[in-house]
Amino acid sequence: MSNCLVAQSGGPTAVINASLAGVVRANQLNPVYDRVFGGLHGIEGVLDDKLYDLTDLSGRDIEILKQTPSSALGTCRYKLKRGNDADYKRLVDVMDAHDIETMFYIGGNDSMDTVDALSEWAHENGIAKRFIGIPKTVDNDLVPVDHCPGFASAAKIACEITHATYLDYAAYTRPEVFVLETMGRDAGWLAASCCFTGNVDLLVLPEVDFDKEAFLAEVQKKFDEKGECYIVVSEGAHYADGTYLSAGDTANDGFAHAVLGGAGATLKQMIVDAGIVPRGVVQDLSRAARSSNFAQSLVDVTEAYELGMSAHMRSADPAFTSAVVGIRPRSAEDMAAGVYNAEFFAGPAKDFANYVKHFPAEWILPNYAGITQEAMDYFRPLIQGEPKLVYENGMPATLVPFNKR
Amino acid sequence: MSNCLVAQSGGPTAVINASLAGVVRANQLNPVYDRVFGGLHGIEGVLDDKLYDLTDLSGRDIEILKQTPSSALGTCRYKLKRGNDADYKRLVDVMDAHDIETMFYIGGNDSMDTVDALSEWAHENGIAKRFIGIPKTVDNDLVPVDHCPGFASAAKIACEITHATYLDYAAYTRPEVFVLETMGRDAGWLAASCCFTGNVDLLVLPEVDFDKEAFLAEVQKKFDEKGECYIVVSEGAHYADGTYLSAGDTANDGFAHAVLGGAGATLKQMIVDAGIVPRGVVQDLSRAARSSNFAQSLVDVTEAYELGMSAHMRSADPAFTSAVVGIRPRSAEDMAAGVYNAEFFAGPAKDFANYVKHFPAEWILPNYAGITQEAMDYFRPLIQGEPKLVYENGMPATLVPFNKR
Repeated sequence: MSNCLVAQSGGPTAVINASLAGVVRANQLNPVYDRVFGGLHGIEGVLDDKLYDLTDLSGRDIEILKQTPSSALGTCRYKLKRGNDADYKRLVDVMDAHDIETMFYIGGNDSMDTVDALSEWAHENGIAKRFIGIPKTVDNDLVPVDHCPGFASAAKIACEITHATYLDYAAYTRPEVFVLETMGRDAGWLAASCCFTGNVDLLVLPEVDFDKEAFLAEVQKKFDEKGECYIVVSEGAHYADGTYLSAGDTANDGFAHAVLGGAGATLKQMIVDAGIVPRGVVQDLSRAARSSNFAQSLVDVTEAYELGMSAHMRSADPAFTSAVVGIRPRSAEDMAAGVYNAEFFAGPAKDFANYVKHFPAEWILPNYAGITQEAMDYFRPLIQGEPKLVYENGMPATLVPFNKR
Repeated sequence: MSNCLVAQSGGPTAVINASLAGVVRANQLNPVYDRVFGGLHGIEGVLDDKLYDLTDLSGRDIEILKQTPSSALGTCRYKLKRGNDADYKRLVDVMDAHDIETMFYIGGNDSMDTVDALSEWAHENGIAKRFIGIPKTVDNDLVPVDHCPGFASAAKIACEITHATYLDYAAYTRPEVFVLETMGRDAGWLAASCCFTGNVDLLVLPEVDFDKEAFLAEVQKKFDEKGECYIVVSEGAHYADGTYLSAGDTANDGFAHAVLGGAGATLKQMIVDAGIVPRGVVQDLSRAARSSNFAQSLVDVTEAYELGMSAHMRSADPAFTSAVVGIRPRSAEDMAAGVYNAEFFAGPAKDFANYVKHFPAEWILPNYAGITQEAMDYFRPLIQGEPKLVYENGMPATLVPFNKR
């Protein structure tokens, strides 16, 4: 019996460890592999032979791992480049040294490309190693899945903070603008999800070229109509020429040594400078949105766990390689009605790699006015439910990261 | 039977509505007053005769009100100045018009001073109106209480985000610094509470004059020792001459029209400019920390509710006026052992007004190294427990603010 390896890559999420827990647990339920090794810091640590034996994690540790945010194995931004035979050979040497036949890689579209490239290279060179991808990303920008583990929990905390800060903002009478900034450099899914709360007056996405005059006119209109304006902006919002909002004003002011605030701070200042209101508040969700275990979506953490299990279970078939598991709606009608009804499927890794799924143009209302009902129906089933967390000392219990042991 | 009035003032908290709910519920259990009116937007709205009848809120609405963050009646920054007889008379006229004998004011030390001033003025002028204070503040800077409703929930979410973002930070190998900024202009309680997680390498408080060279030396030491440095800074951190960190660099760079980032951004840039690491991440908790209902401390929400009840119940005594209710430990030993054991007491409003309770110097470790065990023991009992929240559509249910109806 051979062993398997599982590693994590790219930006952490609130549920990426649930997928890891799923692989480990599935092997306890059906020991397809003798040992389940965790690779520390993604491919980077694996190349350096840094492994951690996860085979016999206790049931309790597996439960706590599911509610431990961020990447418990550590992560990396290192991309195995196609044609880098030295790295490929080194990886196979490490795998051989530990009798590892199968590698599971949990990551975004770059990692899915790595799965594709490694599989291809192994096939071409007659090397009997298998590579299987498990997707994750808070950006939700992967194809061909309906959605991606990590996104729903990020959307849930983003919605919760949107609503809480809107109520905070709404308690005041003084004229000020509120701007909430979310992650999302290329795709505006997370920013768009905040509109689910019904609190967002204006939404600025990377999918729509920013038009300063048109935007300021809408802000003015909101203040004229209702005396308040709650704005959500994606960090990747940009002008038609590609200049990011976050960088624009900084450069204009000849203040080159630092990015002093992102898109949110820029919008706030723009509105103040235009004389619409004398002040504003900026809330940058930053990393709090992607790694907040205290606001996991039950749908998300369950899916992430089951995707890990599904990948492991499918790998019992020795022909299963160069594949990625994903989620798609079983019934579009159910999902649109807010009923969760999803199907797990597997597809070729190349179908998951190197594409960016933007927030659909047909779901974006004109004039920064937010999202359509269809988009609301898309978000609704994803953020439902809260796992029953184990608390210790007043906080959700977490495992000590394996890369810190 | 006369009526009572309850209003909210100052910055919102996650549990200020629980105190409001406590007043309303206590009157349902023992109708000391015929009607319970909510004053919209604090004293500002009351002077404008903007009241909302809360007497008959349903049991469910009271439960939801307890988990509704921010100030459901709306808030104000308006301070009734001593000697402003016009405002005082106007207030009494509004109270008379609605047969209101007693006013409960939920707020910080400015509001407690208002309670004191109004009581004194009524007494001097032979006006049979009573004024009672119910404290709240996320800053925890009130005397003579042990702690103040609103702080514990802010500390709990601050700790949860500290731990989650630390784990996110710890997943990486690349050299970067992490800086988390909390509210707290004069007192560093909230920033200090983040140390409860055990994740904070360096803590920068308003209570200690900032010394750039000494601080950077500590940062360098952390990177030398462990390759990482997680820093928490209070927004009010300042140099010995009183200059805020948040304003300092901005002014130096001749960039006067805006505060471009707070203390956190300044520290990050200082560390990068010193060449210690090439990059950093800033997480500004901003308003998310004070109004996050999804992370209420059960101790906090229970105390806030019971303080509201206690104020109402004590007011059945017609001699009870110019008073504020508060919380102090019944047993210092229990609290130090992490066992919650608190006592509700009432004291003269003047004792609660116009003082700032700083984070104790004897609880601060030298060299930005954090807090003592005694401070940890202080925080522990406060952040315990999680209320069972009612969720609707994937989010904690909230009431529509009364000022928006």
